[in-house]
Parts: sequence; C-alpha cells; structure tokens
Amino acid sequence: MNTSDFRKHAHELVDWMADYFENVEDYPVLPDIKPGQILNQIPNNAPDKADPFEAIFKDFKDVIMPGITHWESPNFMAYFPANKSKASVLAEMLMSTLGSQCMIWLTSPAAAELEEQVMIWLREMLGLSSNYTGVIQDTASTATLCALLTAREKATAFAINEDGFGEQKFTVYASSEIHSSIEKAVKIAGFGASQFRQVPVDENFAMRAEVLAETIQKDIAAGFLPICVVSAIGTTSTTAVDPIAKISEICKRHNIWHHVDAAYAGTALVLPELRWMSEGVDEADSFVFNPHKWMFTNFDCTAYFVKDPVALVNTFTITPDYLKTSVDEEVKNYRDWGIPLGRRFRALKLWFVIREMGVEGIQKKIRAHIALGKWLAQEVIEHPDFELMAPVPLNTVCFRFVGAPPDQLDQINKAIMNEINKSGKLFFTQTKLLDQFTLRLAFGNTNLEAYHVENAWNQIQEVSKTYKQEA
Amino acid sequence: MNTSDFRKHAHELVDWMADYFENVEDYPVLPDIKPGQILNQIPNNAPDKADPFEAIFKDFKDVIMPGITHWESPNFMAYFPANKSKASVLAEMLMSTLGSQCMIWLTSPAAAELEEQVMIWLREMLGLSSNYTGVIQDTASTATLCALLTAREKATAFAINEDGFGEQKFTVYASSEIHSSIEKAVKIAGFGASQFRQVPVDENFAMRAEVLAETIQKDIAAGFLPICVVSAIGTTSTTAVDPIAKISEICKRHNIWHHVDAAYAGTALVLPELRWMSEGVDEADSFVFNPHKWMFTNFDCTAYFVKDPVALVNTFTITPDYLKTSVDEEVKNYRDWGIPLGRRFRALKLWFVIREMGVEGIQKKIRAHIALGKWLAQEVIEHPDFELMAPVPLNTVCFRFVGAPPDQLDQINKAIMNEINKSGKLFFTQTKLLDQFTLRLAFGNTNLEAYHVENAWNQIQEVSKTYKQEA
Ligand SMILES: Cc1ncc(COP(=O)(O)O)c(C=O)c1O
Ligand SMILES: Cc1ncc(COP(=O)(O)O)c(C=O)c1O
Repeated sequence: MNTSDFRKHAHELVDWMADYFENVEDYPVLPDIKPGQILNQIPNNAPDKADPFEAIFKDFKDVIMPGITHWESPNFMAYFPANKSKASVLAEMLMSTLGSQCMIWLTSPAAAELEEQVMIWLREMLGLSSNYTGVIQDTASTATLCALLTAREKATAFAINEDGFGEQKFTVYASSEIHSSIEKAVKIAGFGASQFRQVPVDENFAMRAEVLAETIQKDIAAGFLPICVVSAIGTTSTTAVDPIAKISEICKRHNIWHHVDAAYAGTALVLPELRWMSEGVDEADSFVFNPHKWMFTNFDCTAYFVKDPVALVNTFTITPDYLKTSVDEEVKNYRDWGIPLGRRFRALKLWFVIREMGVEGIQKKIRAHIALGKWLAQEVIEHPDFELMAPVPLNTVCFRFVGAPPDQLDQINKAIMNEINKSGKLFFTQTKLLDQFTLRLAFGNTNLEAYHVENAWNQIQEVSKTYKQEA
Repeated sequence: MNTSDFRKHAHELVDWMADYFENVEDYPVLPDIKPGQILNQIPNNAPDKADPFEAIFKDFKDVIMPGITHWESPNFMAYFPANKSKASVLAEMLMSTLGSQCMIWLTSPAAAELEEQVMIWLREMLGLSSNYTGVIQDTASTATLCALLTAREKATAFAINEDGFGEQKFTVYASSEIHSSIEKAVKIAGFGASQFRQVPVDENFAMRAEVLAETIQKDIAAGFLPICVVSAIGTTSTTAVDPIAKISEICKRHNIWHHVDAAYAGTALVLPELRWMSEGVDEADSFVFNPHKWMFTNFDCTAYFVKDPVALVNTFTITPDYLKTSVDEEVKNYRDWGIPLGRRFRALKLWFVIREMGVEGIQKKIRAHIALGKWLAQEVIEHPDFELMAPVPLNTVCFRFVGAPPDQLDQINKAIMNEINKSGKLFFTQTKLLDQFTLRLAFGNTNLEAYHVENAWNQIQEVSKTYKQEA
C-alpha cells in the first residue's frame, strides 16, 4: 500500500470510526452467535495474492462486526469496563504510526521521559505519596506478578534469582474475594497454590485483618516465610475495600511486602472524598491500578507504583552487549521494570486523556458514575422483590431477584440474566456471593448516562416479573 | 470530545500520519537530545482544566516528535526492526475504536475465532506441523516464559503450581548466544540463574549439540532434572541457527521440553528455500516468532505455537465465578493461554497484513531483505579494511573496520558507530563477538530499498577512512 492509498483508506476508516461512536447503541451489546460461526466464514488458508483493501474492510464489516461484543456501548455493564475515550483513540493512531518500541531510553527518549512525567501526574492525581515511583505495565495481572517477584527477591537477598528455591517455604496472603490474577501470579512465581492463604472476609466482603495477623503468626511458627500480602481497594465481585492501614501495619511488623490491587477502583481516588479507601496505602510497598478500566484510556494501560524501584529493576535486569548504551547511568531503561522486553508507547495515550479531560473532567465523570451506583442500590433496597447483596461503595451493584421460593432463586436469576443478555439491549454478568447466584452491574462506561441505568433497571424489573411467584 | 470533534481531529491526524510516512526520512533517525530534555518541557502537574485538542496535538509535534527514534525509517538498521505496514496501522485504528478486551470468547467472539484461524494461516505459511496450536502473545519474552512454566509443570505433574518447589533442582539450557529474555524467564520461573546452562557455540555461533548432550548427562548424574532446552533460529547478535534437529533428538531422549526461539528469523520460514533452518522443529514442543519484528505487523504481536495446549492451559487456568460462561466447554478462552488476563484484539492486524500483502507479497519482501544482507556481506568481504565477523544466513550483517592497529579497533569501531548515529542519517548498533566490538546492521525495515543499504555502507566507509592508519 502506498502513502496515498493509505491516506484514502485511513480517511474512510475515520468516518466509519466516528459513525461507530455515534451509532454504537444500535448494535446488540452481546452478539447473538454460536461458537464456530465466525471461524467458518474465514478461509482455511492465507491468500497467496494480495487482496484489495476494499475487500478486507468489507469483510471486517460483514464477517467480524457481527461477532463483536461492544465494550464501547453504554449498555455494556458486564465485568469491569475497559473504557476509553476519543482522545485515547487519537493517541493510539499516532502510537501505531510511530511504531515506537520503548524498551530502552535510546529507542524512544520522548516516550521514556513522558512516561516518567505522566506517572508523576497520576501519582499526584490519586494522592499517593511521593515515595512511590511509577511505571506503565500492560495489565494488572503482570504488575502483581512483578510485585510478587520483587517481594520474593528482596526477602531472599536475590537468592532465588541466583540459585532457585531451596528448602524454605514462602506464603502469600489475600482475602478470599481477591482477583484470580493473584493466585495465578503465586503459581507462576513458584510459591505453589497451597502456600496461598485466602483470608476470610467480613460482612462487607473486606479482609478480616485480625485473621490475617493470626494466620501470619501461625505460618511463621510453622516455619513459613511470609513474602507478600495483596490487599484490594475494590474487589472484583463487589468493589469491597480491604482495611489497608491495618494490613500495612501488620506487614510492617513482620517485614512483609504489601501490594495493593486497586485495578478498577484506583481511579476513584481522584476524588478527595474517597481517599478514606486508600488510607494506609502510603505505608504499603506497591500499588496498581488500570487506567484501561475506569480512566478512559484504551486497553492496555496499567499504572504500577513501587516504593523500591531499585529492587524491582534488580529483579529483572540482564544487560547483554547489544542493549548497552552510553547513557545507561543517566536514564530510565524501562525494559528492566517488568517482564516483557519490548514495550509500546502507552504514555502517549495517558497524556492525551488527562489533558483532554483535565483532572476536573475526570473527577466529574467518576462522580457521576458513582451517583448512578448509589441510585440503583437505593432502588434495589426499596423494591420488595429484590435484595441488595453487598454494600455499594462505588458504582458496582450486586443484587438478586427474590420474588420466588428460595430454592429456585439461583436458577431464576440466571434465567433473568441470560434472557436480558440475549436481547442485545444490555449486557451484564454474575458473581457468587454467600454461595448465591448474584446479578452484578458495573457503571464505568465513558458514555454512560442516567437513562442507560434506568433502562437497565426497568428491563430487569420487567423480565423478573414473569418469574414472580407468590410465596 | 463529541463525535464530530473526533471526526475532525481524526481526519487531521490521518493527514499528519500519511505525511509522516511520506517524509520519515527527513527526520534524524536517532534524535540528538540529552537525557531530561523532553521531561523538562512537560509540566510537573496534570492540568485541572481540559486542554483543547489543538494544543495537545501541537505539543505532540513540538515536544514529543523531536525526541522520537524513528523505527519507521528505512535508515533504522539497529537491533531488530519493529517493522510494520500501513495495513497494520489501519487495523490498529479499528482495534482501538472497538476497544475489545479479548480475555474470553464471550467478550469478543470474533476476535477469538479470528485468532484461531490466523494462527493456522501462520502455521501453514511457516511450514510448521499441524500438531502445533497457535496463540497470540504480546512479546517473545512472555511466550518463552510460558514455555518454561509449562515445561516446569508438565515435568512435575503440576506439583510446583500446587505446592511450590521442593528439594529437586532443575536445569535449563541454551547457547551462549541466546537472547537475554531466556535468562530472565529462568529467574522468574524460580529455577535460578545458576541452573541456567549456557552451552558454547561453534564458529558459526550455533549451539554445539554434542556439548549440550554431555552437559545434560552430567547434570542428570549430579541429580538435576533438566526441564527445557531453548534453541534459536536466528540469534540476536548474528542470526545464527542452532542445530534444531539434533537438539530435538537429545530432548526426546531425555524427555526434555524443547522450545525454539525464532523471534526474528521465524518470518523467513515463509521462504521454502530457507526451511533447512527449521528442520527438526516439528519434533520440538514449542516455537515462537514475532510478526512484530519482521512480518510487517505493528508491535506488539507475538505468535506462540505449542504442541500440548492442554498443558499450557492447565498451567495457567483459574476460573472464578465472575468469569464463567455457558459456552466454556465449546470455545477457546485465551486468557488461560498466557500470563495477562486482559488481551487486545491483535488477530485483526495479522489478518489485515497477511491479506493486504498476500503470502507472495511477504515472500518477496523477505527475499529482497535477505539479498541486501548477502550483498553487504560480499562488499565487506571484498574490502581490505573491513572484516566480516559472522556468517550472514539472513539479513543481519556483523563486521568491523580493521584498517588500524588491533589494540585500537574496539575504540575506533565504537567511534565510527557513534559518529554516524549522531549524524541522524543512519542508526545501527553494536554487538560483541569473540570479545570484539562489532558493528551490526539489520535489514528488515518495511520501506527498505537497495539504495538505503548502499548509502549506509558508503557512510561507514567514508567515516572509517578518517580512522585509517597504516600498519
Ligand atoms: C481487582 C482486580 N484486579 C486485577 C484484575 C486483572 O486486570 P488485568 O486484566 O489488567 O490483568 C482485575 C480485572 O478485572 C480486577 O478486577
Ligand atoms: C532471538 C530473540 N528472542 C527474543 C527476543 C525478545 O523479543 P520480545 O521483545 O518480543 O520479547 C528478541 C528481541 O530482539 C530476539 O532477538
């Protein structure tokens, strides 16, 4: 493709992109397709000859689009959003054009320095201590793995990196509500799932700090070396907030790394009135949140903050001759700050998003999302056929229909969810709380307005009525 | 930003992007800036109020662009390229607009099924056995880590995932020329660098298989459990090709996982005449190559092929309630195929690139790049003041200026490189071969033409002349 063809096609795409943003609600949020349906429309072999771009773009529209789940839709209330903003898409256009590979300073000086500065911006925006140093990672899963590995090496004076595991067994702690990525990291880092302690939660689904303290003491007495506690600001099921300050204190007492997973809810710390959630974070060792979840920045973009960046770098650094440069002593070479060598220029989209919205613009949207969560929670509480299943500190609401005999509720709530999701008008997901099938809606989409939440609630009420049975 | 503003700004960006592609050679390949120079131009704090997009885009051009290393330039001959194509940039525009988060089938059915199919395309294009199943990863570093972890778990019947390491020590093998990401993965996976055996290479910088066999035998006798051998098709310094078939045989004999790192050179297997390089790969256990290096697909995009995908998935799988779906038995949920949970819709760009170029179009470009490597190698051989430092099986040429007394050559070659790189007309890097500072040029850029290589060679000869000393 020559440059003038690119110019022509890119302009066509821009019009399609803008139309998509305008009309996203016309698509079914969740596509009504069967496994294999898309695959069967794609030839088994790569074409020998070049296809004209027109044909490729047509197939994108005809074959791919019908199989897309619309994360962009304000009626997407499933999981946590991977929300974004138009400024972020504009940044991605430039990032892909430059194609910078940001492994070291020399390969992309502006990217390295912009990353350093926007991570300072983020730190200040969230009210984190200036003792934290930030680095961009792809996902929270990877950042948490980095935390566990650094904790492992720091606690052993880098002995495992050097000689592997010995006789010593290590333990890692988190609440029973923690995200699955923590256990995955525990396994990858070589600790073993049976050394992962899932501390029980209280009635708010927050970690019981006193049980954590007891468990640690028992483990130490039994000869384990506690390596890391992972606490959550905003668990995945209910956005519960662990008692960070108490956990920090326990960790300090035993010299254990405290990693705070605020993957989703971290963004809410832009609101001073929500800083109660992060009390004690400045005494922790690391903190992660995802601008790609709730800060309007295209997936992928994770912000990882660490108190001891030297330990982080020492955990990963290996410098072969072909990567040495004359400025290595003066600059940050971010390849040593995480697992992959190659890195995209993600700082650019953060810079675009923060500037285009302004801190106040971000705060305003976050406040609006939280108000919608509170509104639905109140509606649920007031409705005799529904039950709120967890407190709603932010914008994620867990509840269930209870207008039928108890032994049928799991099945009925699942049926309600499936029926609505099949309609294509709304997409939300489930969780399990106190062993009960629970509906779960998250209100973090960039384009979300009050009427979307009202419509969702109306649909749920409507469909539920058909399952209503007198007791 | 509303949709009509987006439309307007995106069209402006497209024109800038097309101009950039047209004029990329007007920029200095390597920017002439000092550490801190960009950072000092970025305010210390995030703006409270929104900035107009015009101001942001202006700063991008005025502040960021002067600090960009131009990976897009055909005069970028450093490292390995992160090459791309215009079709791939178009795909990235659509990917970022959809913002699909492809962790499971349900969140992006078309992405999951397109991924399955394009990975079959790639497998056939490279002539790999149909016993391989493919999955897209972000980088080769991560894919290699996946290989080591799967090998670890398979060899121990998943005991380390379950209970952590015990008394048993494990060994991992690669040649002394292997990429630094292998040792990084050895450390992350908990084996310890001292259990990483760097097998010496022959005069072609390829692994000496007989030494590998001996080393394994010694280790077994000493009580180690050999877990994995990582061989290379195309090492980073010289694109040396390890004897894959022999290594596969040794691995089979001892039931050791054989992982093949073809990060860069894998793309060359689209050429049937180069399939000698991959002889024995079908007896290996896994294979990785980077379409983001030499297959015209924007960074990041790594293709990982594995014989036993069940073992891979079992190494990583954890299914919490909030991620369960009704189709889990029928579909591929790629989140279990790697380290991060969230995943971008990378299959789209592979599909665009392969179709827009056609297999023949890709073959033609690769052949042209290889011809340029052979041409420069011949020039170097024929020039009395230069010495070829390694065979040139592909398009990476390692050589040095030798027109001065031996004890000054390291310093002089470094000076030549720095002087040329400072000119902004060309950017290449160094490696160390037989303990000697070596110039290294890689010819994989999408826009590379013969005259770029001729110009590079002329520049090197010109500058070298000023260092010439009679012996
Ligand atoms: C609390 C929490 N932590 C971690 C993650 C993992 O995020 P990522 O996909 O960035 O790895 C999630 C994802 O939903 C989450 O909710
Ligand atoms: C042979 C080889 N393997 C692995 C890698 C690592 O690639 P990535 O940045 O995708 O992790 C490289 C990078 O240059 C390489 O040359």
